[in-house]
Amino acid sequence: MSSTDTSHAGEILDRIQHHKGVRGVIVVNSDSMSVRSTLDNSATVQYIGMAKTLTTMSRSLVRDINPQDDLAILRVRTKKSEIIIAPERTADDREYQVIAIQDYE
Amino acid sequence: MSSTDTSHAGEILDRIQHHKGVRGVIVVNSDSMSVRSTLDNSATVQYIGMAKTLTTMSRSLVRDINPQDDLAILRVRTKKSEIIIAPERTADDREYQVIAIQDYE
Repeated sequence: MSSTDTSHAGEILDRIQHHKGVRGVIVVNSDSMSVRSTLDNSATVQYIGMAKTLTTMSRSLVRDINPQDDLAILRVRTKKSEIIIAPERTADDREYQVIAIQDYE
Repeated sequence: MSSTDTSHAGEILDRIQHHKGVRGVIVVNSDSMSVRSTLDNSATVQYIGMAKTLTTMSRSLVRDINPQDDLAILRVRTKKSEIIIAPERTADDREYQVIAIQDYE
């Protein structure tokens, strides 16, 4: 993991984690590895797995319907919280995935 | 398809289809059959298939993380539009799934 990765992830984390109700933020690099996470390891691994499965499936379904379109953001609202899975491209063109878990109970 | 199904679906459709940017609304019964749709048949079948696949996958992933939780609403934002997949329970306890496609270009 490069120091640039870690510093980018730190900026992303700082920006999101203090939003109201945010219970966790994970910054994932293009190898599906957690660069930074505010959750414990097992929860981090679970959410990364979920995000990867849903992103891959959604992207292919979106492209089935319109090959010129592409997936941007996935929001999974459950009874207890909302999981937001969004791509993040930095100024120096590095691509991350941000997973934010927001409770609203 | 019962007349009650069709009249429920009509109420749901009327409520949603006139929102700004809404390009299509599909009301699906618990057998994954379209009760009403404002889209043509092939698009209707495609979106129902997508919704069914994503809903099934998301529900199981959500329950993996927390067995007491359940999926509520899925929002798939793409470059061109947003696909909202939400359950709808009527006063007489019939359950439908509503798929709304909203463009924002």
